[in-house]
Amino acid sequence: MVSERELLQWIAARAPIGDDCAVLECPPWGTLLAATDSVIDGVHLRWAEEGPRALGYKAVARSMSDVAAMAGEPLWAFLAVCLPSGVTQEQAREVYLGAESAGCPMAGGDTAFGPVCYAVATVLGRAHPKGPVLRSGAREGDWIVVTGALGGSLRSGRHAAFEPRVDTARKLHESFELGAMIDISDGLSTDLGHILDASGVGCRVQAEAIPIHPDSDLQGALNDGEDHELLFTMRPDDRLEGFLPGLQRIGVVQAGPREIIDGSGKSAPLVCGGFEHGR
Amino acid sequence: MVSERELLQWIAARAPIGDDCAVLECPPWGTLLAATDSVIDGVHLRWAEEGPRALGYKAVARSMSDVAAMAGEPLWAFLAVCLPSGVTQEQAREVYLGAESAGCPMAGGDTAFGPVCYAVATVLGRAHPKGPVLRSGAREGDWIVVTGALGGSLRSGRHAAFEPRVDTARKLHESFELGAMIDISDGLSTDLGHILDASGVGCRVQAEAIPIHPDSDLQGALNDGEDHELLFTMRPDDRLEGFLPGLQRIGVVQAGPREIIDGSGKSAPLVCGGFEHGR
Repeated sequence: MVSERELLQWIAARAPIGDDCAVLECPPWGTLLAATDSVIDGVHLRWAEEGPRALGYKAVARSMSDVAAMAGEPLWAFLAVCLPSGVTQEQAREVYLGAESAGCPMAGGDTAFGPVCYAVATVLGRAHPKGPVLRSGAREGDWIVVTGALGGSLRSGRHAAFEPRVDTARKLHESFELGAMIDISDGLSTDLGHILDASGVGCRVQAEAIPIHPDSDLQGALNDGEDHELLFTMRPDDRLEGFLPGLQRIGVVQAGPREIIDGSGKSAPLVCGGFEHGR
Repeated sequence: MVSERELLQWIAARAPIGDDCAVLECPPWGTLLAATDSVIDGVHLRWAEEGPRALGYKAVARSMSDVAAMAGEPLWAFLAVCLPSGVTQEQAREVYLGAESAGCPMAGGDTAFGPVCYAVATVLGRAHPKGPVLRSGAREGDWIVVTGALGGSLRSGRHAAFEPRVDTARKLHESFELGAMIDISDGLSTDLGHILDASGVGCRVQAEAIPIHPDSDLQGALNDGEDHELLFTMRPDDRLEGFLPGLQRIGVVQAGPREIIDGSGKSAPLVCGGFEHGR
């Protein structure tokens, strides 16, 4: 049976894939960002409970969040939908209304009928004139920051109702010297690992500084997926305090190992325990 | 139960959708073309018989054909794949190798595991400097031309192995004054109907001039889907004869009704009898 990790490594070795979006140069117009995500009934949400509107919304919002994670501006969304043949006209429309409500203009798509219900969204955006923020830019001494409370996204329903942090990312990029950025889809520990891997650095995270959602505990905040808050590093800058609601410094980038420090000052290795989709 | 036609009309009324690709202006770089298509096991092909490579190939080739239908140049392909959990590493890789073999550089994608097997491709391209060829440009007196033999695409296997007519479309656009163009995915009669609807004109098609694939008859050539040959109109130009292999004039655009003329000169109304996907 297939290993997702092995398959993704094999794909990554064949194509320049690895950041939140594809980065496509279209000079002098700018840099095009493109992200594609699937939302499948029974895998990424439950149509019968969460409804058709959530399907469309989550698909577009996931890809918008990828564009936000590079501090880009989402411009156009495309939605490929497959609907079970027994669906009503009203339910089918709800999928599209949900997609529209994510806030990116719909520019095209495809509708099919088949044995399963899914929505695949592709969002195209434009990088900020300062350039896209990559996963690979974290530097020793950078602060590590998240944009909101983490964990329990499934229990709280946020996994299908989160707001992509588009404006937050743009304001941060314009006001501070960001190092690396990613959106938290696989869990804080795993997504921080992606940044550290890409940047070739370590970290020292303060467990007590991690903002924990009311529907979660510390383990959930570290390892649950689909928060879709942003995780970024930045050059230390005291203007961060009070800059925007929800921002929380959780640690610092260091040259050494990946550590998490508990309340008593004890260090433990920070390992990737986040959610690997499809396992 | 949902009607596909009614749903697509409702969607089309909400967004500027209706041509083969979305047309997105990125000045001064150019005009971006974007097309998205689903290929689902059991709906658009049969994985067990046609194999994983055909799944990836067909998804990308369908969207490339949409870019070709506007005389654009495919630049980047994105593939969102869902694989059944029992798939082997080898089968999973075959999907991607099939997608690559369609000939458009792969720039990103998404991999999920779920209850069904599908590939959704998004292809981004650039319009020709002369502009994209739309469905709405057919004018009275234009010749109606197809690029190859039609019908029986399922029986012959061409539905999953056709070659997108990218170079043909570019050469035609550079050498002639094209009116309207579309790729034949729903069947000649239906896709010609799309051009005539968009252009507000009629046609006079000679049944005997329609090139029929060896695996088909005239009804198949008129109504089968997924040939993915191009159907276009152009200002009369005698240089067309012998310009490229496979090109065949099948009729003329007229102001009046939509007619098809049989071998004895008898006229009948040309009605859309093509394949409506998902019915």
